[in-house]
Parts: sequence; C-alpha cells; structure tokens
Amino acid sequence: MRFFVPFDAQTPKTRLAPVLDTAERSAFARAMCEDVLAAVRAAGHSPELLATDDIDVDAPVTVDDRSLSPAVNAALADADLPVGIVVADLPLATADAIERLLSPSAAVSLAPGLGGGTNALVVDDGDFRVDFHGGSYRNHRWIANDSGLTVATVDSFRLAVDVDRPSDLPEVLLHSEGHAAEWLRGAGFHLDETGDRTSLNREGAD
Amino acid sequence: MRFFVPFDAQTPKTRLAPVLDTAERSAFARAMCEDVLAAVRAAGHSPELLATDDIDVDAPVTVDDRSLSPAVNAALADADLPVGIVVADLPLATADAIERLLSPSAAVSLAPGLGGGTNALVVDDGDFRVDFHGGSYRNHRWIANDSGLTVATVDSFRLAVDVDRPSDLPEVLLHSEGHAAEWLRGAGFHLDETGDRTSLNREGAD
Repeated sequence: MRFFVPFDAQTPKTRLAPVLDTAERSAFARAMCEDVLAAVRAAGHSPELLATDDIDVDAPVTVDDRSLSPAVNAALADADLPVGIVVADLPLATADAIERLLSPSAAVSLAPGLGGGTNALVVDDGDFRVDFHGGSYRNHRWIANDSGLTVATVDSFRLAVDVDRPSDLPEVLLHSEGHAAEWLRGAGFHLDETGDRTSLNREGAD
Repeated sequence: MRFFVPFDAQTPKTRLAPVLDTAERSAFARAMCEDVLAAVRAAGHSPELLATDDIDVDAPVTVDDRSLSPAVNAALADADLPVGIVVADLPLATADAIERLLSPSAAVSLAPGLGGGTNALVVDDGDFRVDFHGGSYRNHRWIANDSGLTVATVDSFRLAVDVDRPSDLPEVLLHSEGHAAEWLRGAGFHLDETGDRTSLNREGAD
C-alpha cells in the first residue's frame, strides 16, 4: 500500500529553533523522516515523499510546493485506495504502530497527535479530503461524519508523538534507537531524569 | 483482577496551580480518578484506591501515607498475581486501553507516560518491585531485566497522557467525555484550536 509522507524540505521544524540551529533542524528533520520511511517499509508498505522541494532520499519524491492540505488532497485524488498518510516527524513510529492503522475496518482510520493534530491516517473512501488546519483530529472526524463515512481512531503513543518542540525531544531518546535518536546523541544530547518529566541536556550548552 | 490506583488525597496536582486553585485541583483530581475507576471497571476488573488519606469514593480504599513506591510495593507484596497498577490522572483511559495491558504474555507489562514515567503496569511475577522515582519507565525495564523477567510495552496514547501540567489539559477535552472533561467544561474551560497545538481558554480569565 502507498503511504504519502509530507515533508517540508525548506524550513523544517522552526519551533525547535531554541535548541537547534537551521542546519541542525534540517539534518534532524531528515533523520526523523528516515525513521518514518523505515517504519512504513518494515510494515510492508511503500512510502513516498510529498516534499515542498526536491530532496535526495531513498524513496520516490513528488514535489508540490503548495501547503500541506492541498498537496495531500491532490495526492489522494490520484491514488488507488486505500492509501496512507503519515507525517514525517514521528521518530517513535514502528512497523507495529503503522500496521495498527490498517486493522480497523473503517473508511478513515486516524491516529491523533499530541495537541489535537492528526499524525497518520489511512483513507479508504474517495469522498474523504484532509484539512490539517487547526485541530485537525476533530476536523477529520467532522469531515468524515459529514460524508457519512465510518471513522476509527488508533490509540498509539508512538504515532501520537510528533516532534515539534524542545519538550518533545526527550521522547526520542526514551523510546527510539533510530536515525533521529542517533542524530541527537551525536549532537551531544542526553537524558536528564532528575525532574518530574525527563528533559534533555546538551554537552557544551549553558 | 485487582487494579491499584494510587491517589494523593492531600495535595494533588500541584503543577496545575497556574490554572486551578487548591480546591479546584482537588475536585479535578477526583474527577480524573473517577474516570480511571470507571475504565478499570468497564474492562471487567476491580479498582482499589491506594490513598494517602481516607477518601469517600465508590471503591475499596487502603490508606498508606508513605510515598508512592513503598506504598505500591507493599500492596504488590500482599496481592495475588497478576495485579494491575494504574495512576489516577489518566482521564483518557478507556476499557480497551486497560484491556491491552493484559494482552502481552510477559511478566511485566508497562504503559509509558509522557516524559518517561510509567502510567500503568500489570505485574505477574512476585520478584518485581516498582520504583517511580525519576524516569520510571526505564527504571522498570531495568528492574525487570535485572530479575530476568520478560517485559512488554503497551503502545497507548490514552494511557500515555497523565495530566500533570496546564499543557496537558487540552487532551482531556479533545479525547474524553468523562468526569474530568465534564468538570473542565463546568469550570469554564474550552478548546482554542487556532494555534499549532490546541490550547485551553477559560471564561472570565484574562
């Protein structure tokens, strides 16, 4: 099955600016994307990048410089169903978690993200269109309901943790041994488990 | 099966002080606890409170004023196995999520929480003891490994979201219709989905 992986090839992960500079954010975003591609492949599916600019990666790339929702909807309109969409900043994703998206027998399966987003979905009805604006998890339920489509929600921590903010980074080192975790360790980050929630420190940082 | 639910009856949820006063934090903590008790019961199990002080609730209560780990370990030592432990601040918990803790055939099943904690576990070996200090998810894996016990991890968003901080509150209104969600709505909180992650506003607040 095809899985589209939208990827911001130009200015990824701007909200990580407090802890990573521009070049680091690009490299870290690439590492997270590699983890997602690996998880989709390990689940037996075919990932394809839907990127805002050309990018050298070991997967088919479609360049579409529109914003996320129109780019994904254009891809959906041309694809055989079912088709998957998974965001590129899920370094905790595993084959098992991806596979669980496929088990519910619903027209649309959604994996919510922290803060009300949608991090992964499988679409099996041509009437469904995405809208990633605002709280997209509730948007997507409404869109499906408006078209009379059945919706399933997949209860996955690994698909819920999209890494957008510095406070998300500890989850990568806690729960992954993939490319993104390796990149963080290489950049000098390590876990600090002295507080009520685990944080990250960086060698040489203040 | 017995499920122990540790509950701070005295000063719960102090990290919510920026948005809730002392009486509100107590009431909200109780509402979250009711959601957890309901989820455990709906899964066909028997919840029991392990509280730091006597509390009027529709479940058996054991009062133990020690800190979390010794109190839970005393309960574990006296219980027939398997036995469950689930923290009281999981308002997104459902019967399905609780049931998934029981499906892995391991000596210890762990549901990680955001930030490296352990939000729920099922223990089926008398050699296992808990240690909730610091990053307890990794602690618990090490403790199990040291005793040669098999460990399973349950990938659940609903069990991962323990509500400790103001930034956790939106998840309650996004994903639950239970006691805690009803309490928040009654207190004037509503979702604000204009940002990159959904936040909460409160009527009458600045």
